[in-house]
Amino acid sequence: MSAASTPFITPDALLAQWQGHRRLTRRVIDAFPDDQLFTFSVGGMRPFGELAMEIINMGEPMVRGAVSGDWTMSRSRDPRPKQEILRLWDESTGQIDTLWAQIPPERFLETLSAFGQYTDALHNLILYVIDNEIHHRGQGYVYLRALGIEPPPFYDRS
Amino acid sequence: MSAASTPFITPDALLAQWQGHRRLTRRVIDAFPDDQLFTFSVGGMRPFGELAMEIINMGEPMVRGAVSGDWTMSRSRDPRPKQEILRLWDESTGQIDTLWAQIPPERFLETLSAFGQYTDALHNLILYVIDNEIHHRGQGYVYLRALGIEPPPFYDRS
Repeated sequence: MSAASTPFITPDALLAQWQGHRRLTRRVIDAFPDDQLFTFSVGGMRPFGELAMEIINMGEPMVRGAVSGDWTMSRSRDPRPKQEILRLWDESTGQIDTLWAQIPPERFLETLSAFGQYTDALHNLILYVIDNEIHHRGQGYVYLRALGIEPPPFYDRS
Repeated sequence: MSAASTPFITPDALLAQWQGHRRLTRRVIDAFPDDQLFTFSVGGMRPFGELAMEIINMGEPMVRGAVSGDWTMSRSRDPRPKQEILRLWDESTGQIDTLWAQIPPERFLETLSAFGQYTDALHNLILYVIDNEIHHRGQGYVYLRALGIEPPPFYDRS
């Protein structure tokens, strides 16, 4: 194996990492009282419901684009009940698994233009989506603490 | 190339990602007023200076352990001036680059026991360290906003 093709991590293992993060983020969404999801925030930042909708609108569309070249993406962050967010979340989870298996393995190292504006190696584009989820979920932890609610443990990805 | 050895990302590209995150985290540390780093927090959470010290005490020690099997780690989170944190930060940055180059490429897929208690594939252990940094930095963004300070842009890793 040449140095250039040595994996830090394989696509399957990265997907497992991501889905572990997604299980944790789902628990953070679920920990919010329904009436605080689109109203509560700290320091004038966006409420967690809007952040959750952003995460939903980035994850599956990124993977779908990588498979098909179809880069359409909903930008709706409108308030909706928690159960509806969780339903969209679970739908995305299944779609990400299905679509991931259709990405040709060599594509992760190729440069793509996502959503007509972000040009980078596919692995960097996907890591951006995951890192953005972790970043906003970290904000959600602070919102929960400020609401007097104990967030789920960060290390538990089951 | 077999499916098992197809890279999602190579070690060099992952290091570049991490160091991009570290440049952003350094700017977040630097954005805090010196007198708020170890005093200000939201919701009873730890102040950002403690989180920054945790990040410093995880990053370079993880890479050093992966190279040498030496898993010693400082647990000090004691308050200190911002310039001292930034000095430790910059020292770690150079050490991570130097040590990373010494990790045998096949080791990233091997299972290790880090710090005598965390057993996982090395790539998962390293991603945990990076994700923990992103998570706590996201909390730092909320602290900065609550202090009326605009945080550095998330997408800028230069």
